[in-house]
Amino acid sequence: MLTTIQAGNTIQQPKICLDHFVSTEQLSTALVEALIHRTLEIKRMHPSQYPKVEHALISNLFFEPSTRTHLSFQVAQRHLGMEVIEFDPATSSVKKGETLSDTVLTLQALGISTVVVRSSEEKYYEALINDPNLTVSVVNGGDGSGQHPSQSLLDVTTIYEEFGFFKDLKIAIAGDLSHSRVARSNAELLYRLGAKLYFCGPHEWYDSTYDRFGEYVELNDVIEFLDVLMLLRVQHERHEDPRAELLREAYHYNYGLTLQREDRMKSSAIIMHPAPVNRDVEIADELVTCQRSRIYRQMENGMFARMAILEAIIHGQHEKESINALS
Amino acid sequence: MLTTIQAGNTIQQPKICLDHFVSTEQLSTALVEALIHRTLEIKRMHPSQYPKVEHALISNLFFEPSTRTHLSFQVAQRHLGMEVIEFDPATSSVKKGETLSDTVLTLQALGISTVVVRSSEEKYYEALINDPNLTVSVVNGGDGSGQHPSQSLLDVTTIYEEFGFFKDLKIAIAGDLSHSRVARSNAELLYRLGAKLYFCGPHEWYDSTYDRFGEYVELNDVIEFLDVLMLLRVQHERHEDPRAELLREAYHYNYGLTLQREDRMKSSAIIMHPAPVNRDVEIADELVTCQRSRIYRQMENGMFARMAILEAIIHGQHEKESINALS
Amino acid sequence: MLTTIQAGNTIQQPKICLDHFVSTEQLSTALVEALIHRTLEIKRMHPSQYPKVEHALISNLFFEPSTRTHLSFQVAQRHLGMEVIEFDPATSSVKKGETLSDTVLTLQALGISTVVVRSSEEKYYEALINDPNLTVSVVNGGDGSGQHPSQSLLDVTTIYEEFGFFKDLKIAIAGDLSHSRVARSNAELLYRLGAKLYFCGPHEWYDSTYDRFGEYVELNDVIEFLDVLMLLRVQHERHEDPRAELLREAYHYNYGLTLQREDRMKSSAIIMHPAPVNRDVEIADELVTCQRSRIYRQMENGMFARMAILEAIIHGQHEKESINALS
Repeated sequence: MLTTIQAGNTIQQPKICLDHFVSTEQLSTALVEALIHRTLEIKRMHPSQYPKVEHALISNLFFEPSTRTHLSFQVAQRHLGMEVIEFDPATSSVKKGETLSDTVLTLQALGISTVVVRSSEEKYYEALINDPNLTVSVVNGGDGSGQHPSQSLLDVTTIYEEFGFFKDLKIAIAGDLSHSRVARSNAELLYRLGAKLYFCGPHEWYDSTYDRFGEYVELNDVIEFLDVLMLLRVQHERHEDPRAELLREAYHYNYGLTLQREDRMKSSAIIMHPAPVNRDVEIADELVTCQRSRIYRQMENGMFARMAILEAIIHGQHEKESINALS
Repeated sequence: MLTTIQAGNTIQQPKICLDHFVSTEQLSTALVEALIHRTLEIKRMHPSQYPKVEHALISNLFFEPSTRTHLSFQVAQRHLGMEVIEFDPATSSVKKGETLSDTVLTLQALGISTVVVRSSEEKYYEALINDPNLTVSVVNGGDGSGQHPSQSLLDVTTIYEEFGFFKDLKIAIAGDLSHSRVARSNAELLYRLGAKLYFCGPHEWYDSTYDRFGEYVELNDVIEFLDVLMLLRVQHERHEDPRAELLREAYHYNYGLTLQREDRMKSSAIIMHPAPVNRDVEIADELVTCQRSRIYRQMENGMFARMAILEAIIHGQHEKESINALS
Repeated sequence: MLTTIQAGNTIQQPKICLDHFVSTEQLSTALVEALIHRTLEIKRMHPSQYPKVEHALISNLFFEPSTRTHLSFQVAQRHLGMEVIEFDPATSSVKKGETLSDTVLTLQALGISTVVVRSSEEKYYEALINDPNLTVSVVNGGDGSGQHPSQSLLDVTTIYEEFGFFKDLKIAIAGDLSHSRVARSNAELLYRLGAKLYFCGPHEWYDSTYDRFGEYVELNDVIEFLDVLMLLRVQHERHEDPRAELLREAYHYNYGLTLQREDRMKSSAIIMHPAPVNRDVEIADELVTCQRSRIYRQMENGMFARMAILEAIIHGQHEKESINALS
């Protein structure tokens, strides 16, 4: 229930404990709400008040490049006082054919208790979680076209921070839905939280698995009553294609947030985008930092969301240790 | 006035505050002198006395490779207790066509307040400083053939440490002047500080924009009365060229510091080089660590100069915050 | 004498001091025993009790890729509270033809007092140790087909932890002996510590320089009475070779630890492997984490062994400083 999440709430909340953080589907709605609450609580703190976790060794395994997710986790880890051990996939034994499980087993032998992993392999985390030799906690930093649950947590936190509720908020997700792990996590989660969802973009990028969460519509038909417009990044720019510039213009005109469309939005409505933005493709250049854009707010919240996630992971580890010590 | 800079000065100096540190031309002579003073003050401290800056997040964006400037900044940041967030340009969204401003905006959203940037694009920093969305401080780690102001600060500090003054010191800068950002920054700064400058090297590597700072001469004609010989690195070694070895020998004989030329130098004269050195090209192998060489002293001073620069940047940020808090 | 190494020994041991740590041959047997002792002592500590070294700047120069050795050193350095300065060989001036000595001289000028180096060049460390301008301590993280002394220390520590002595232990080293730096360091060291050594594997991978340490035998002839079976990684997998799979199977059948061979081992015998493992080549997949496998124990001990080595290096530096201060 969202009634438990209130700004300025001074009641001591129970500690959130997580074993892993791999997909939004595995998180109860109550847990998501608690994480939103905690994210905003951390955001209100002065850096000197940040929760500190001691002797916690963590490693980030980014097998796919990522500037902002990787940086965001790194800053969150520093703020929590974690010991971050850099892992460079380019020079790792994974290149020599070692399995991900064996690599993580090595990290575990070195005392690393948590790994943040981004991989192009969908559901890579199942093998790690189910390996009887592994006790390491797994935080999913994105898996193929699967999930990107920390991005979802920051997105729903940004929406909750703005409106204070989800029930019946009109939210459109627009773009390459079939390849977007952000869209998939967000649709599932926002639907569960009570929002009314619309999906927009080229028909060949739509995917009928979204049908159960909302309606596939023309952006022009919903723009006027939306509360939130979530734009997705066009992933497969082909700069070598001589028609690239034409295609970019066509996408912007047909599916992007043009100045004309933005002008029709409600005064209270906000714009979101996971970034990096293709200026003048998904969104007009002038709108990236306009008043209703929450694009940089999302990044800011992302760091706090990741602090909340990592704190909950460490709490989960401490809890397990206490249980093991008793038994 | 250089009279304000005295070794062992116990009078409390006012804090140096900088918004950015991007080119020597933007620094007043008084500010340069204050930074020299502070650099040498930090150098005399025991590591436990180093000034500490808390909760200061900084990121180093080196789009061009650099061992020593990058390492030097990293060590300086550690000594100051800064939180350094690693940024890997190879995997960054800049590769996906994101502008430098958008990348820095992301870092800013994550709470990073200072960036050290090296880029092949001349004056890249102007776009960052003039972007109304950016409040991040920029420290220039080298821009194309433009400036390398932290190298200049360490160079003038090394000269001041040696002689205690600049007025009428006879300084030659020898080598590829037209492509050297080090030469450009140093010429402008040393001229302003009162030194008498000479420029040497192949004529095709000279550039008449140096005319206003000093005289283009033959090294043989000035070697006997120089106080400082600053050698520049030959940048464009072409190892695949079958004539490479011959060219190296010819450069050394015609323009380099041979044993014969070194023998003609005044007993008090010193040799400088920004490193890495091409042994037996700019300078004879035996002379790299000879008694009058200050090459490794320069590197040592570089770290202290960067500590002074970063400290001044953080002071500048605190000052702005105080002003904002009052207004 | 091994009598000085006892678990639970409460007598204050003298501090171990090292100038460098580059090859097992340069370590006296007493020193090796003291390092084994100290490694197991650190292993018994709670992380909050770990020895701390302050203001110690260290840099890891891995010119050859390595996941586990590099990570293991990094974690050890963090636990000791060292300041680790990342060095990226890919962007370093070594690529511009700078010698390793000149690079290390630069690091020294920046205040770095210890370097951990892995290089494909055998005995690269001799040039560093003998350079009169260098005072930096060198820790060898592996040199060509030469030495890998920190791996040897962790291997002998793992054996000592298991059995409590070395005298007359029957130890086989099996695999590509001619290219293995691990085998070479271990053979020399275990022979000196009193173990009885056997060498197994394809004859073309044997090297008569091992003759003086033990006997070249068929694995089948010794498997039943071995105390320790040390398997070596098959390094030169040629995945592109159409016969690769056949060759892997043949190696496993002829020279690897099959289920059948494992079944013939003594109940107290253990299996070791420096990892990463080629499953079903050197060792059957099911045996990698079997009860007698110490493969992940080796990695764990590796971190403690590296803490002991680095601590001894820092002690050595402090000792030299004290002597210099007195003289």
